[in-house]
Amino acid sequence: MKTLIIISHPELTESHTQQFLKESLPEENVTWHHLEAIYPDEIINVENEQALLREHDRIIFQFPFYWYSSPSLFKKWQDLVLIEGFAHGKKGQFLKNKECQLVVTTGVNINAYQPGASEQFTIPELLRPFQATIQKCHMTYLPPLVIARFDYMSETEKKALLIDYRQVVTNVKLPSLKEKEEWFKQELNGLGKEGFSTENQHLVDLLIAQMEENREQLDDLNWTLEEMKE
Amino acid sequence: MKTLIIISHPELTESHTQQFLKESLPEENVTWHHLEAIYPDEIINVENEQALLREHDRIIFQFPFYWYSSPSLFKKWQDLVLIEGFAHGKKGQFLKNKECQLVVTTGVNINAYQPGASEQFTIPELLRPFQATIQKCHMTYLPPLVIARFDYMSETEKKALLIDYRQVVTNVKLPSLKEKEEWFKQELNGLGKEGFSTENQHLVDLLIAQMEENREQLDDLNWTLEEMKE
Repeated sequence: MKTLIIISHPELTESHTQQFLKESLPEENVTWHHLEAIYPDEIINVENEQALLREHDRIIFQFPFYWYSSPSLFKKWQDLVLIEGFAHGKKGQFLKNKECQLVVTTGVNINAYQPGASEQFTIPELLRPFQATIQKCHMTYLPPLVIARFDYMSETEKKALLIDYRQVVTNVKLPSLKEKEEWFKQELNGLGKEGFSTENQHLVDLLIAQMEENREQLDDLNWTLEEMKE
Repeated sequence: MKTLIIISHPELTESHTQQFLKESLPEENVTWHHLEAIYPDEIINVENEQALLREHDRIIFQFPFYWYSSPSLFKKWQDLVLIEGFAHGKKGQFLKNKECQLVVTTGVNINAYQPGASEQFTIPELLRPFQATIQKCHMTYLPPLVIARFDYMSETEKKALLIDYRQVVTNVKLPSLKEKEEWFKQELNGLGKEGFSTENQHLVDLLIAQMEENREQLDDLNWTLEEMKE
């Protein structure tokens, strides 16, 4: 699976969140595509963008929440790139069945996004224009990943975010327990290749063995359950 | 009351709706401010825009629905102009208590904007990012005026739209029956000055007299009702 990450951020290098996400990316099958860097004059090459979209299976729209929406360059991108005959309409549905996921960062506490609190609406509500756009382009809308107040996160929270983000970028949607295990196994093996110490590699092998044993026990349990039903 | 109409529309001269709305404007106390015409290079003069906002009492944001939102230049305007220290934050709430109303045009049938129909969400739902922005800037959010499929409107529907739009531009919010009457009287007198034929002026005078008579009868009825209650 090839993933295209379209980032819109006028001050990317100053964003700790974006730098953190960028550094966590796998080396293969992921394209990091930062609009403000590629188009400093804000003149978008529509053909390039459309070709890029067609080459990838999963599309990520990644941006900070500016006035409850994306920065303006990404709005321009939508208006110019997602046109009839390419993204929607009777002819040309070139994005059909691709998966699309939003990754939204905000400096505001997530609890503020609800009725009665300072931001009034939930983030999924505020993202409806994007949801409607993505679905109008015949793509599958995956649940957004919202990253709130990154700078206040503990190390543990950051590690959890890293796993969430890696799954956004590399994983199938809403994975089953078994798919999650497969994904972890692959990731752990990948890490191994990048150079673990012998001791750590041994730990990783043990971890994988343990996971597989758990899986077998689970399968046994499921089988017993099926038997009992009959 | 002074009204500022901020329009964002990349192809304004080709829009029948916008031309129709523009021609219906009163000559005084209204500023027509078309962003794409003023900033063809998309470089916004922030100080100018902020000064303009401060000079007016009612602010209209008028745009066609592009991907369930505004064209990108208006998003850029929001991000640059509505900054902390001017529009929100502890210091500088220069827009406080101004009235703000959206005028949104769409080529899609209004019935398509609902769950189960092609656009999935209602227009008020899709406008929530704007609602949240306007309220964060301490302005009063007035109910949006949605103009759908202007080119398919009958002459009668267009006349009704004209009255709705004139009220958006010149009237107090959610007017009572009495306020509506006063507004009509003022408008009709205004039309007279711009040069009615003697015959038409006589008709207008009769209309105003009739409206005043109706009002007196209504007042009498209300008085009788109050008496009966006692």
